Amino acid sequence: MVQGLSADSSSYSFTPLVVLELASDTKQEATAWLLSRIRDRQQNGGAELLVEQLGPGAGAQEKENPNMFLVGATWQRLLTGAEDVGLFKEFNDGSMRGFTCANKHNFKDFKGYGDSFLSMAECQYIIKHELDTLRAKDETHVPGHTQAKLYPGKSIIRRLQSKGILIQVFPLHDKEELKRLSFSWYKKVKFSFQPLDDIRHYYGEGQALYFGFLEYFTFALVPMALIGVPYYLFDWEDYDKYVVFAVFNLVWCTVILELWKRCSTSLAYIWGTLSRKKAFEEPRPGFHGVLGFNPVTGREEPLYPNTKRQLRIYLVSLPFVLLCIYLSLYVMMIYFLMEGWALSVHDEEPTFWTGILLFIPSVIYAVVIEIMNLVYRYVAEFLTEWENHRLESSYQNHLVLKVLVFNFFNCFASLFYIAFVMQDMVLLRQSLATLLITSQILNQVMEAFLPYWLQRRRNKKMMRNVQKRRAVEDVELALAEQVRLEADMSMYLGTFDDYLELFLLFGYVSLFSCVYPLAAVLVVLNNITEVYSDAFKMCHVFKRPFSDPAANIGVWQLAFEAMSVIAVVTNCSLIGMSSQVKAYFPDSELQLILWTVAIEHGLLAFKFILTFLIPDVPKHIQINLARLEFESLEALKKKRQLHGGKCLKPRSSVRGCSEEERRSCRR
Amino acid sequence: MVQGLSADSSSYSFTPLVVLELASDTKQEATAWLLSRIRDRQQNGGAELLVEQLGPGAGAQEKENPNMFLVGATWQRLLTGAEDVGLFKEFNDGSMRGFTCANKHNFKDFKGYGDSFLSMAECQYIIKHELDTLRAKDETHVPGHTQAKLYPGKSIIRRLQSKGILIQVFPLHDKEELKRLSFSWYKKVKFSFQPLDDIRHYYGEGQALYFGFLEYFTFALVPMALIGVPYYLFDWEDYDKYVVFAVFNLVWCTVILELWKRCSTSLAYIWGTLSRKKAFEEPRPGFHGVLGFNPVTGREEPLYPNTKRQLRIYLVSLPFVLLCIYLSLYVMMIYFLMEGWALSVHDEEPTFWTGILLFIPSVIYAVVIEIMNLVYRYVAEFLTEWENHRLESSYQNHLVLKVLVFNFFNCFASLFYIAFVMQDMVLLRQSLATLLITSQILNQVMEAFLPYWLQRRRNKKMMRNVQKRRAVEDVELALAEQVRLEADMSMYLGTFDDYLELFLLFGYVSLFSCVYPLAAVLVVLNNITEVYSDAFKMCHVFKRPFSDPAANIGVWQLAFEAMSVIAVVTNCSLIGMSSQVKAYFPDSELQLILWTVAIEHGLLAFKFILTFLIPDVPKHIQINLARLEFESLEALKKKRQLHGGKCLKPRSSVRGCSEEERRSCRR
Repeated sequence: MVQGLSADSSSYSFTPLVVLELASDTKQEATAWLLSRIRDRQQNGGAELLVEQLGPGAGAQEKENPNMFLVGATWQRLLTGAEDVGLFKEFNDGSMRGFTCANKHNFKDFKGYGDSFLSMAECQYIIKHELDTLRAKDETHVPGHTQAKLYPGKSIIRRLQSKGILIQVFPLHDKEELKRLSFSWYKKVKFSFQPLDDIRHYYGEGQALYFGFLEYFTFALVPMALIGVPYYLFDWEDYDKYVVFAVFNLVWCTVILELWKRCSTSLAYIWGTLSRKKAFEEPRPGFHGVLGFNPVTGREEPLYPNTKRQLRIYLVSLPFVLLCIYLSLYVMMIYFLMEGWALSVHDEEPTFWTGILLFIPSVIYAVVIEIMNLVYRYVAEFLTEWENHRLESSYQNHLVLKVLVFNFFNCFASLFYIAFVMQDMVLLRQSLATLLITSQILNQVMEAFLPYWLQRRRNKKMMRNVQKRRAVEDVELALAEQVRLEADMSMYLGTFDDYLELFLLFGYVSLFSCVYPLAAVLVVLNNITEVYSDAFKMCHVFKRPFSDPAANIGVWQLAFEAMSVIAVVTNCSLIGMSSQVKAYFPDSELQLILWTVAIEHGLLAFKFILTFLIPDVPKHIQINLARLEFESLEALKKKRQLHGGKCLKPRSSVRGCSEEERRSCRR
Repeated sequence: MVQGLSADSSSYSFTPLVVLELASDTKQEATAWLLSRIRDRQQNGGAELLVEQLGPGAGAQEKENPNMFLVGATWQRLLTGAEDVGLFKEFNDGSMRGFTCANKHNFKDFKGYGDSFLSMAECQYIIKHELDTLRAKDETHVPGHTQAKLYPGKSIIRRLQSKGILIQVFPLHDKEELKRLSFSWYKKVKFSFQPLDDIRHYYGEGQALYFGFLEYFTFALVPMALIGVPYYLFDWEDYDKYVVFAVFNLVWCTVILELWKRCSTSLAYIWGTLSRKKAFEEPRPGFHGVLGFNPVTGREEPLYPNTKRQLRIYLVSLPFVLLCIYLSLYVMMIYFLMEGWALSVHDEEPTFWTGILLFIPSVIYAVVIEIMNLVYRYVAEFLTEWENHRLESSYQNHLVLKVLVFNFFNCFASLFYIAFVMQDMVLLRQSLATLLITSQILNQVMEAFLPYWLQRRRNKKMMRNVQKRRAVEDVELALAEQVRLEADMSMYLGTFDDYLELFLLFGYVSLFSCVYPLAAVLVVLNNITEVYSDAFKMCHVFKRPFSDPAANIGVWQLAFEAMSVIAVVTNCSLIGMSSQVKAYFPDSELQLILWTVAIEHGLLAFKFILTFLIPDVPKHIQINLARLEFESLEALKKKRQLHGGKCLKPRSSVRGCSEEERRSCRR
């Protein structure tokens, strides 16, 4: 069927989109086999992609890996791939529909051969999908590597990756587009929205949603920040006002989280990821187990009993997490000892230096918290890996849960202790400010400047080599240089850490908002710099990530909502505990507490009712989705009415006729 | 395409399944038009069903309506109808799949012509669906009834119903099957499970799920009842034990509600309603508005602005509900006045009669509550009708919400008042018992015995007429008699009231469980009689209802869960308020309350975590569903790979060839 595209088509010139890097000790036959499988036609079970070995770079040293391959595809192959991955594109009538080759001409921006209908990120995503779904046929192992066994029907690429033969697969940057994007994103000085559509176009939906959320979150905090400023400036201490501020904050937090769902749905609808169906999820590369038959697919693959995993989770991971939390609380108690010691030193002989000494325990503690978070993160990854989850999504959920719970305790335990055990509001305010500011500074350094500095050092070294060689050799080596430069860049590890940071910031803002109204201001300022530093690191520090067609921010929505529930509890108790409110109930503390509890329950109930009242999907999108569904139902009905007679006729005659005729038609 | 089935096929003998009753003053031409539309072929936009006028009954008096029509269908028509409604049946491999005529032979119980593959309830459901989707073509109004306008593409039957021309559509009972079912259901004396599959076979999934839930709920309460008995017998008053009991109850309530989800999923899977896709929802018959174009379907139909509806809800319905709640609280205060008066009379001169007088206010109050519930129910229906909801589901949700909130206040307000304002545990226990027992007795009378008695009177009258005529005429009139008998039976109004009753019982059990441990015992006893009286009324009092392919108990799951959350709050406060617990904290009531609140929050958090931990769908069903999805994905992929070449070839040549060939094939 496919003409003009044979196994030798890799010799044509093509746009390289994705880079495959094999280990330098890969056997020649393994490489040849892999390339032929990638180039082979789809009917024969190949991926039908174009692939070419990268020539030696300008800085070709003995250390350089020769096994770098560039992968691309023909325009037609990309279109069929777009159908395979279930890409949604804008239709002629403005709605978003799943792309199919059969009615490609009805899609809005489709103009014919080689146009910009598919973005580079989409093409790269398609190629990644096609590579990932390249399945073993009857090979028992990778040629030349007997230890790397293959099972019929399982992904070759994942197998190679887990066996260490394939080092990395990454998409190439597009220098021109990147320059344009980074200009409109963070190089313009004027205040404007982020170019979310361009970000999505270049990095995919997952990234764009993160930046969309960051922007939304920042704007959503502005009212809180604005209201918080006069509290700080005029030192408003009367609790009437604080109560108003706290209640506003609590309701506001619920409202913004609900409205974000609508926002994210709108974005996902425009970007076509909302209605997209998830493909069948393959096991993670690292998953291992005894060979057996998968009850779902019926294929032979490693199986791992669920009970064994549950045992690992409940008997090892859970106790370990609890132990870590205990450790974190222990460290907290040491901090309070230090704090007390510094205070006593300062009280004995107050000088300028002892005044500074007062802040040192907090700063040390903040640094220790960050270090503990970092260490715990690695251990959590190791543990979750060891739990041997079959699916990436289940792995991610368990990892997020582990990290969230620990980070929550680690960051906020001392504040809880100060607020509810020591009941020292001045210290609480001071600690909150110290923790917030220190963690922000540390984060910016760790996240952007450190990688940038490392990257620059690497780049300079590379550039020196390049300059040396360029004098001698051709200028045409630009592509090879770029590939090798990018291969050396750090891997972007996903939006996990970015969301986690926002989550903790949200905690600082919401949990104790009635004590430190300035928190929102600090977080807004931080977020503004965060946009720039994140944008910068995406464009210049990390490898380009594969796009991730996300329809929402996933488990993080839940995490933020949980935080806002906890915030209701903490704020109500803080207000109930304050001496100013206590003055209203001079006779009976009982009355005060009962009122506090009643109001707290009322607020919680209100939150839940609000969650129900605000629909998650905006009306116009609901209508659009309903229309598409209605159309497909009608089409199905028409089809049935056309073929409805089949049930009434004897089957054999109907089928016999058309089958024979069709066969003759093919001849 | 359809041969041997023409418009005159109604003259054949056929099994009548559904009865249509038109108003006796319907014009002749309207009847003729409706029948011809029902009989017309599907290609011409008809329903292609068999329909016959019912002959005069045995008791033919002048009052008798001659416009009764029996509707049936050929076996083939039922099969195509089964595909239309998306019926799920058991496949050869044991999985449940959507029935299609094309591969009918691969379904398990399909044996050929006229077998029991489709149950009578399914056939009736199919006929109802086909009648409901019979759409107007270019008629502007019903012939002979110019006031009954028709709009192209809108359901004729719904229009006739809302204009009062069509009085009722109901499915016929099957005397033989009903006898068998009622024998296995409630006539056997031995203790056994209900024949849920038979119930589903006869009444459909919605009914069967209700009875399944009733049975499940009864069994789930048995442990609570068993633990509650010794508390009552030995008068255990020490609160250690009560705390244990209350905590057990709270956790138990959460667990049983979660497990019910699994149960209901299993049932819905076996019955094939779990994966069934909802058809596009048509407007309710009573919906009215200004003519416009539906943004979803593009058809001309009445539109009603959402803002207007919102205004009606928030400016009329909401204040009205609040007013009703206020009224209900007012009645409650009158009850307390009466109670106090009776107590004072008894205290002055205690005799046997004043002893009885003590109970009279509670009994009167219980009766008043039931009457108020009943009256409110009608008003709520009227209001919700007036809110003019477009969809039946939205109407139902608003009705359920209105009724639930009011019933909750009406039934439980006095208990809350006694518990938390008067803090009189003895009175609470007494009131709880009186309310529970009175409402149970009233319910059984109102629900089963009253309708039964009315029905029997009607039946006897009818029978006397029949006997009179039978002497004169033929014995063959049995069918006509049955139809006219059933047409006179009361209409079954759905499971709403049954679920509402269970909901209130659940409230009595869970809200104050630590005060009156015997409540669970009473509810278990009530439920056992409830099974029998409900079964009896379904079989002998009401018309057979159309089956309702439900996959779960819908909004009631949410209502029960909300009740279990409220129960945590009430039970914790009851325990915190008890004098025995107060004795543990002699010095500080503050400590006590803080502990109570902390434990309450802990329990609530535990409930939510439990909800997450217990998966809603049992593992084996998850696997089955995943397998079906995987298979359909694989099939789609194969189909794409076969036709994948299309994208690469010029389209015209491919299509031209096959289209021409096909046309020649048909000739």
